[in-house]
Amino acid sequence: METRFEQQLRFIQEIDRLKQIFRRTYLMDSSRPENDAEHSWHLAVMAMLLAEYAADSPIDTSRVIKMVLVHDLVEIDAGDTYLYDERAGEDKSERERRAADRIFGLLPEDQARELRALWDEFETRATPEAKFALALDRFQPLYHNYSTKGISWQQHGVTSQQVLRRLSVMQDGAPRLWEYAQQLIRKSVESGYLAP
Amino acid sequence: METRFEQQLRFIQEIDRLKQIFRRTYLMDSSRPENDAEHSWHLAVMAMLLAEYAADSPIDTSRVIKMVLVHDLVEIDAGDTYLYDERAGEDKSERERRAADRIFGLLPEDQARELRALWDEFETRATPEAKFALALDRFQPLYHNYSTKGISWQQHGVTSQQVLRRLSVMQDGAPRLWEYAQQLIRKSVESGYLAP
Repeated sequence: METRFEQQLRFIQEIDRLKQIFRRTYLMDSSRPENDAEHSWHLAVMAMLLAEYAADSPIDTSRVIKMVLVHDLVEIDAGDTYLYDERAGEDKSERERRAADRIFGLLPEDQARELRALWDEFETRATPEAKFALALDRFQPLYHNYSTKGISWQQHGVTSQQVLRRLSVMQDGAPRLWEYAQQLIRKSVESGYLAP
Repeated sequence: METRFEQQLRFIQEIDRLKQIFRRTYLMDSSRPENDAEHSWHLAVMAMLLAEYAADSPIDTSRVIKMVLVHDLVEIDAGDTYLYDERAGEDKSERERRAADRIFGLLPEDQARELRALWDEFETRATPEAKFALALDRFQPLYHNYSTKGISWQQHGVTSQQVLRRLSVMQDGAPRLWEYAQQLIRKSVESGYLAP
């Protein structure tokens, strides 16, 4: 029991570093970039509230919540890869797989398996829950970008074509959210937040 | 549907402010104070991993996770009340009740009821899930304080007697975590992190 408990505590300490992994997205008040821990928390609450819009509703909301809580832990080692950075995207999965091996490997074996399975499920997008979780993960930064008048888009020269292409996967997981996302993208272009 | 969806979106936007509610506790690398969104995320992952130590194991872990995800939302209006600030503690429940009325009231009625019920459950500490959630909420800052050599305790002149008194409630929810908490408090005093 001591060893098991110590492993759990070491993991809990290790993941504190997620609070220092900063994303390209800004908080909605535009004051500073958001970090991965905050982002994961926000997605988890969104999962509680928006599950009714999942493509295959009803889904197992609790599994979605757990999935989004751990989906970015690999970025402790691999760093945040910007959705529109195609260069960094190339070796992303290899970097993140190594990170998953190390980070989930800190846990007792049964819990390492459980969390790794959640992460694998999210990454492979095979289940309705994973597809919905991915839709939230794409929608949340869009909503932030819209609310901050596109600061992050402008800083990185992102166009509406890129946003539409990278977010279209939302359709599989949450078609109604995808519809609304397209409205936000249109409004962003009209308002000059996002390059056409 | 539009109105319901708009209410949900407004809530999701409103709670972004939790990322700007700073606590007295520091991140484990001592670099800066932690905010409530990060804290809530950390508790949710801890709930996933430490549920086996709940007093009345097995408990409904998913409800614990949801509870900790929303337990601090009231601090958007009421601010963070430091556990050792007895003056501010006096009108805390009234301030937080008003905040709960306003913030959960932004949601569609069924979801407002659901989240309010989770918050009430946490506050009244009546169920094994709420007691366990509270134990995590007390344990996490202790673990942070120990890891940061007690910066926050020293800044606020906190003594081990105060910590023992405010954390003893952990015994009801997670007796094994409470045992370990007492060890950390002893070690903190021995190491000079915490005044005897």
